[in-house]
Amino acid sequence: MTAGTGKTSRRGKRRHGGRSANIRRGSAAIRQVPWTLPQNPDVPTEPLDEEGEHAVHDAAMRVLEDIGIDFLHDEAKQILADAGCTVRVGSGTVRMDRDFVMEQVRKAPERFDITPRNPERMVRIGDDYMLFGNVGSPPNCSDLDRGRRPGDRESYRDLIKLTQYFNCIHMIIGYPVEPVDIHPSIRHLDCIHDALVLSDKALHAYSLGKERIEDAMEMVRIAAGLTPGEFDASPCMFTNINSSSPLKIDFNMLDGPMRMARRGQPVIVTPFTLAGAMAPVTIAGAVAQQTAEALAVIALLQTINPGTPVVYGSFTSNVDMGSGAPAFGTPEYLRATQMSGQMARFYGLPLRASNACAANCPDAQAAWESAFSLWACVSARVNLVYHAAGWLEGGLCASYEKLVMDCETLQQVIHYLRPVAVGTDDLAVDAIREVGPDGNFFGASHTLERYETAFYRPFLSELNNFEAWEERGSIQTPERANSIWKQILDEFEPPPMDDAIREELEAFVALRKEEGGAPTDY
Amino acid sequence: MTAGTGKTSRRGKRRHGGRSANIRRGSAAIRQVPWTLPQNPDVPTEPLDEEGEHAVHDAAMRVLEDIGIDFLHDEAKQILADAGCTVRVGSGTVRMDRDFVMEQVRKAPERFDITPRNPERMVRIGDDYMLFGNVGSPPNCSDLDRGRRPGDRESYRDLIKLTQYFNCIHMIIGYPVEPVDIHPSIRHLDCIHDALVLSDKALHAYSLGKERIEDAMEMVRIAAGLTPGEFDASPCMFTNINSSSPLKIDFNMLDGPMRMARRGQPVIVTPFTLAGAMAPVTIAGAVAQQTAEALAVIALLQTINPGTPVVYGSFTSNVDMGSGAPAFGTPEYLRATQMSGQMARFYGLPLRASNACAANCPDAQAAWESAFSLWACVSARVNLVYHAAGWLEGGLCASYEKLVMDCETLQQVIHYLRPVAVGTDDLAVDAIREVGPDGNFFGASHTLERYETAFYRPFLSELNNFEAWEERGSIQTPERANSIWKQILDEFEPPPMDDAIREELEAFVALRKEEGGAPTDY
Repeated sequence: MTAGTGKTSRRGKRRHGGRSANIRRGSAAIRQVPWTLPQNPDVPTEPLDEEGEHAVHDAAMRVLEDIGIDFLHDEAKQILADAGCTVRVGSGTVRMDRDFVMEQVRKAPERFDITPRNPERMVRIGDDYMLFGNVGSPPNCSDLDRGRRPGDRESYRDLIKLTQYFNCIHMIIGYPVEPVDIHPSIRHLDCIHDALVLSDKALHAYSLGKERIEDAMEMVRIAAGLTPGEFDASPCMFTNINSSSPLKIDFNMLDGPMRMARRGQPVIVTPFTLAGAMAPVTIAGAVAQQTAEALAVIALLQTINPGTPVVYGSFTSNVDMGSGAPAFGTPEYLRATQMSGQMARFYGLPLRASNACAANCPDAQAAWESAFSLWACVSARVNLVYHAAGWLEGGLCASYEKLVMDCETLQQVIHYLRPVAVGTDDLAVDAIREVGPDGNFFGASHTLERYETAFYRPFLSELNNFEAWEERGSIQTPERANSIWKQILDEFEPPPMDDAIREELEAFVALRKEEGGAPTDY
Repeated sequence: MTAGTGKTSRRGKRRHGGRSANIRRGSAAIRQVPWTLPQNPDVPTEPLDEEGEHAVHDAAMRVLEDIGIDFLHDEAKQILADAGCTVRVGSGTVRMDRDFVMEQVRKAPERFDITPRNPERMVRIGDDYMLFGNVGSPPNCSDLDRGRRPGDRESYRDLIKLTQYFNCIHMIIGYPVEPVDIHPSIRHLDCIHDALVLSDKALHAYSLGKERIEDAMEMVRIAAGLTPGEFDASPCMFTNINSSSPLKIDFNMLDGPMRMARRGQPVIVTPFTLAGAMAPVTIAGAVAQQTAEALAVIALLQTINPGTPVVYGSFTSNVDMGSGAPAFGTPEYLRATQMSGQMARFYGLPLRASNACAANCPDAQAAWESAFSLWACVSARVNLVYHAAGWLEGGLCASYEKLVMDCETLQQVIHYLRPVAVGTDDLAVDAIREVGPDGNFFGASHTLERYETAFYRPFLSELNNFEAWEERGSIQTPERANSIWKQILDEFEPPPMDDAIREELEAFVALRKEEGGAPTDY
């Protein structure tokens, strides 16, 4: 298969008659950047020289060749054995030689598109594109009014609405909070239903057993009005899997991707390599292990369906050696992400990382950890930033206020990524002459012609002076964010969906609920 | 003159007998990084291509050649006229042709050292060195207990002590707060006295009239136990001046630097080019104007004393076009600083920028604005970061808590700047084999040998989980910082100073106070 292009004509065949949804629709609660697919013009920061890159590659290859990875999935082992890999009898350990690995990895596209039910929300993963996903998978959520609490369907829907609202969030990279009030057997049905109805952005499905991933693919297909053949023809959704580092890939983390790969749907492979815990305490060692684990799965998927869109996922950070707790937005995270960027480019693969933080509340620590994470992502030339908006507590909590705060910084990053103009008019020598030593530029024609769009205009940052700020109640950032998300939710309108499609989707959910959904132990 | 080296022998002649102060002295309030002069190993981010660099240069040269800069200082004008520049009769406008400018700029050193009274506190400005200065010049200060208030001598001394305490702050770049309870005629005497007694780090003197800068030079000379000739032989202190943008340099901003240059003391030249207000609304135009203004002063100083250490100062940010207020840590600030870095390297000059923010309190906005500013400084390869710790409100307030918070992020940047190791031991293939798929790295010998120093260990960030954090009172970052500065001040011990030097310094202050200090209108 080939990824990416040539989707316009098939989209014209959609059952809803090709009516294009308006992505500028929605409330005017805040001043937003327009929907855009940002491209990163900067030369990436590369802590490794060429020799260092090869050393990390060689270490990863030695792990794959000499130590091996445990694949806890019989069919996966068989496929790899058939392809010439060494499967140790009586265990799941698979050793692959570097020629095999590299041959498979080379089949993966450097770039691919994912087209969700609204083709205007197409996203492009790879090259110099830099896209952002919402927070994914926390068990808890919090806001200033209700405090921290386990996620439920209401908060799930709220956070999906906020994700849909913000143009700076390109994709739904997981449940923004786990709705624990829905039984796990049917949670995926309600969650994906809600995400498809409340949003028209590309969405992720969890690889948690055959039923869940198959149901998700079917629901995305229905929502997009595609035939099964059309669905299989190019990416419409995606999944992310984590290895059980060190050196182990669980059944579900293989079974879902294998099903997705067979239907040409993208798989992000993200080893969970926290340095000092599940990976070596050295950043080079952790990135080497991360590379080995990621490439092992990518090689399997390319063996199954050559050309399957895949992403090299970097999650390498460090634990705090005092407490053993994961730390994020650290100097080590910066360097690990940049080194991961080098390895992704070395293999010609798109890169995923995260906008992560460890803070327990949306305070200054949360902000600097997240800003350092965004610095990591820009300087590493990350293509897809997971958890870009809303994450707290190392992923244990989704914060309504933090989501809004993060969108302010994401908008700034998007603005930052625009190329700098240095034409004659930009250099403004005539304007400098016109204003002269006794004037100012506020009223200059050069300024007036440009001031509406010259600079990024924040929606959340307070730029009034102290006295004005104090007079209005000394409102700190999270409190300002609190007002904003309420306004957005109050004014939220879901994107259009054809009635027939909505009915088909609901019928599918009802049927699958009758059948019991996905099997669970409880 | 030549800057930089060969100072060890003269330092041996110090009156205090060459006893070396211990820079590791002081309280153990927090876990600090050691005193070090960090070097930035990253390739800088360069938004301009070569043509763009030349375009900015050409625009700056056209400003200098065709429009001119107003020098409000008769002697300066005469010196420039004598050197062949065109001085317009009846005004202060000086036009310089590009050959003259470039000839003068080339005389400035690419790197120089400043050696304060404690030679172990020598700082190196230029090349890939990246040093940090405290907050400078706010009229107000704040802490969580006493709120925001005008600065006084007590708060001035407090903030100097904190500046002295933190190893990540290399220099005193100005009064950390203006002590408005000291009459301006003698303020400089008390302030410089206190800075010299409470700190042994390199310090800045304001260029605010002949008396103040001359007194400051004399006091630094006395504190270092130097003869006038020794003082003149190499840099011992520094000043910073701002142009009155657009296109104007006030009398004091020229008089001080001319006096410093004649004695071989470094001058940082920082145009105040807020885009959209005192400079064009386009970043390219603002940087072009900044370059013109900075080079105009640098050319004058090199004419006066070839080889005078100078620094190209970048302060270009944007105003908020809604309120007209200055904005900091913005996308525009990032790009302007990076472009300034390119221009500084183009001219072979060290670069100054700032860790700036606009926020009114030490909340999330302050943290992300500062983190973005630090990102700007690292990616631009800034040599000297002004206002690195403690600045709020666009420079109108010095915050005790923000100072501590900033030091946490400065320490992280210093840790980040360390080179990444990729030796065989770092790649850790043997450790990965040893741990295997069923283990973890917490107890691995590879981890145990390294865990004390493997990662940056924060002193302020909270890495305990939510429950533990909540149990201890849900203490947010500024409150934690509040406890830390109190402990530091409680335990503070000033660096050693020879009694004879202290007496001489006090006698000088008393004498100058008797003489009336510096003249004022009030």
